Amino acid sequence: MTTTESPEQLARRAFRSDWDALSGVGRDARSGGYRRFAWTGEDARLREWFVGRAAEVGLEVVSDRVNNLWAWTSDPDAAVSSGRPPLVLGSHLDSVPDGGAFDGPLGIVSAFAALDLLRAAGRAPARPVGIACFADEEGARFGVACAGSRLLTGVLDPDRGRALTDVDGISVAEAMAHAGVDPSIVGRDEETLRRIGRFIELHVEQGRALIDNDAPVGVASAIWPHGRWRLDLHGHADHAGTTRLQDRDDPMLRLATAVTTARESAERHGTVATIGKVQVLPNGVNAIPSQVIAWLDARGADPDAVGRVVAEVSGATGAAAVEESWTPSTDFDVTLRDRLASLLGDVPVLPTGAGHDAGILQAVGIPSAMLFVRNPTGVSHSPAEHAEEADCLAGIEALAQVIEELA
Amino acid sequence: MTTTESPEQLARRAFRSDWDALSGVGRDARSGGYRRFAWTGEDARLREWFVGRAAEVGLEVVSDRVNNLWAWTSDPDAAVSSGRPPLVLGSHLDSVPDGGAFDGPLGIVSAFAALDLLRAAGRAPARPVGIACFADEEGARFGVACAGSRLLTGVLDPDRGRALTDVDGISVAEAMAHAGVDPSIVGRDEETLRRIGRFIELHVEQGRALIDNDAPVGVASAIWPHGRWRLDLHGHADHAGTTRLQDRDDPMLRLATAVTTARESAERHGTVATIGKVQVLPNGVNAIPSQVIAWLDARGADPDAVGRVVAEVSGATGAAAVEESWTPSTDFDVTLRDRLASLLGDVPVLPTGAGHDAGILQAVGIPSAMLFVRNPTGVSHSPAEHAEEADCLAGIEALAQVIEELA
Repeated sequence: MTTTESPEQLARRAFRSDWDALSGVGRDARSGGYRRFAWTGEDARLREWFVGRAAEVGLEVVSDRVNNLWAWTSDPDAAVSSGRPPLVLGSHLDSVPDGGAFDGPLGIVSAFAALDLLRAAGRAPARPVGIACFADEEGARFGVACAGSRLLTGVLDPDRGRALTDVDGISVAEAMAHAGVDPSIVGRDEETLRRIGRFIELHVEQGRALIDNDAPVGVASAIWPHGRWRLDLHGHADHAGTTRLQDRDDPMLRLATAVTTARESAERHGTVATIGKVQVLPNGVNAIPSQVIAWLDARGADPDAVGRVVAEVSGATGAAAVEESWTPSTDFDVTLRDRLASLLGDVPVLPTGAGHDAGILQAVGIPSAMLFVRNPTGVSHSPAEHAEEADCLAGIEALAQVIEELA
Repeated sequence: MTTTESPEQLARRAFRSDWDALSGVGRDARSGGYRRFAWTGEDARLREWFVGRAAEVGLEVVSDRVNNLWAWTSDPDAAVSSGRPPLVLGSHLDSVPDGGAFDGPLGIVSAFAALDLLRAAGRAPARPVGIACFADEEGARFGVACAGSRLLTGVLDPDRGRALTDVDGISVAEAMAHAGVDPSIVGRDEETLRRIGRFIELHVEQGRALIDNDAPVGVASAIWPHGRWRLDLHGHADHAGTTRLQDRDDPMLRLATAVTTARESAERHGTVATIGKVQVLPNGVNAIPSQVIAWLDARGADPDAVGRVVAEVSGATGAAAVEESWTPSTDFDVTLRDRLASLLGDVPVLPTGAGHDAGILQAVGIPSAMLFVRNPTGVSHSPAEHAEEADCLAGIEALAQVIEELA
C-alpha cells in the first residue's frame, strides 16, 4: 500500500527533517542559543550537513577560493556560456554567540525544500539553480561580518582577511588551515562570480514590520549603511585595594563613557549604536584593568549621521575608532524587487539595518534580492528569535514561486 | 681548591636559583605577566617546585585538609606537645591574571633562603619552623580571595567553598578532583591550626609607603576591611542593527552606571572601589547583550563607608550586590608587630588595603605579622610590579633575624 504525499507535505517533511538535523549542532545548553563560529568543529559539522543534504538530492557541491560552498542542480558553466548565468539561492549556517536557530539556516533549509517541492510537483527548473552556503557571515569570531562574500567579491583584501584574529590571537589563516582548508588561495573568485546570474537570500525578519503588516513574507528594499569600529581604551594595571583613586588610570571609566556616549549620540543623530562586545585585560576582580577593548556597531539610514556618532564616541573616550568594516547603503535591484513583490501578491517591501551576503553581492553589481519570513518576537541575535512553521512553509512556497519565475 | 661562600652569598644564590626556576611557570608572553590560577596545570607545577625545594634541604612536606602545603624543619607536633607551637613563615604561589612575579612567591622563596642563610651561618633554629604554601590566595579563578586559609580556618564553609565555580562553570570540587586532590575532606583542620604558634608572611609592598619612607623593609599594622560583590545586570538580547533604541533593554548601560557610581561613591565616602572584572553575554559585536555580570571590589578604613558604596552601586543599577567575600578590619598582633619593628631597627609600620592569608590567621587568633619589601613602581597585580634584588636580600636578612628571634 502506498500513501499519497502532496509536494507541500514532502516540503514540510524535508523542512522538519533538516531542522532536526541542525538543531543539536553548536547549541549552548545554558542559554538555549547557538554558538556556531567560523572554522570551528561546529562549523565543520554544519558544512558536512550541507554537502550531505545536497548529495541526497543529486546536487553537486563545489567550494570556491574562500571555501564558500555551492550546490548546483546542473552544470552552471553551460548556462554561463549561453549568456544566461544561473539563479542562486542561499544564506549562511554560522551564528552570533547565543544566536537563534533561524538566522542563516532558514535560508539554506528553505532553498533545499523549495527545490524538493518543485521537483515533487513536476515543476523542476529547466535551467541550473545553485544553493550557496556562505562562510563566516556573522563575523562573530574574527570581527568582520560577511567575510565569505567580501573575500569572494574582493571587497575585503585577502591579506587583510587572512590576518584577522580572534580573541585568542588565532588568525583566519591559522583557523582555516586548522579546519583543513587552504588559506593561500583566498581571494576574489571570478569563476564563481560569473556563475551567479541573480542571487536570492531568504532570511528570518529581524524586526517587527511583518507583524505590523500581518504578512508571513516580505521583500527587502535596502540595507542601511553600517559598520563596526574597535576602540582600544588604555589604562594602567594596578591593585584594586592599594591604589588611591587619584593615582588610578582605570580604562573601565572610559568604557562607561563610550557606552553612554554611543547611546546619547545615536539618539541625537537618529541612528542606532551598540557596544555589545568588550574584552577586559586582565579581567581580575582585584585588578584595575590595563586595557578595555570595546567594539562599536553603528548603523542608520544616513551614513553621515553614523559617522558623527562614531566620531563622538571616539572624541569622548580619547581613543581612535579603528574601522573593522564599513558597508555603504545598499539598494537591492529595483526591477527584481518589484517583480518578486508583485509575484508574491504585493507583499510588504522593507528596509533593514542588518547586513547580509545578498547586500555584498548586490554592491558588486549582481542583481540580488531578499525574502523575509515573519518573526513573532521581532527579536534576533538571541535565543528568542523565532519563526512559526506555517510562516516557514509560506517562505518555502514563495521561494519555489521565485525559482519557477526566474529559472 | 674550594671557594669560600659567605652565608649571604649562599642566600643570594638560592634566591636567584629559585627565582629562575619559577620565572617561566604560567608567564603570558604577550603581557609579560603571570596567569597562575588555582588547581590548574601551572598551579601543579608551582606546587611540585615547592615540594622539591623543601626536599632538597631536608624539610618534610605535608598537605592539610584543604591541600595547603606545609614544609617542616622537624616534627611540629613535638613542639605542640611541649606547649610551644612552631613559628611558620610562608605565602602563596598563585597569581591574579597578568599579575607580577613577586606577589606571593617572594614570601616563599625568601623563607627558604632565610633558613638556608641561618643554617650556613651555623644559626639554624633549635625549634621546628614551617613554611606554608597557601592554595588559591588570589581567588582569581573562583572569586573568593584567601580561599585556602579561609577553608583551613573554617571562615569559609566547606560546602560553599567546594561549590564555587569559575567562568566555565567548573566547581572548586571538580577542579580539585581534576588536579588529583580529594575535595571531600576539605574543611577546618584543627591538627594543622594547632601547629601554627605564630605566622609571619613576607610580601612585596603594594603601594608607595616604603618609597616615601626610603626603607627597603617595613612591618604591617592592619588590613583594611574589604570585600567583593557580584552584580548581575540583566537585559534583553537583540540585534544591534534592527532594534530601535526605544525598544532596547541594554545591560551595558547599567554597567556604565555601575562603573561611574562606584568611582563617585568611593570618592564621596573616602574608600576605594573598582570594577575590574566583567562578563558580557553573549559578547557579540552585533548583539545587544542579554546580561552583563560585574564584580565590585570595595575597601576602606571604615567598614560603614564601604557598605555605603556597595549600597549606592546596587541602588543605581537596580541589581542586588551579592557578597562573594567580606573581611572585617584586621589588626595584626600588636606585641609581635612592635617586637619585629624594633628588632629590624624601627622600620616603618604600614596599613594595607590588600587581603592576605596572614590576616585570615590573625582573625582566628593566631598571632601573625607581615613584612613588606619595597616595590619601586608602587604597582601590583600588574606585570609592572617589581622589587630590586638588594631589597629582596634585605627582606631575606630581616626574615632570618625574625626566625632567630622567635624560634
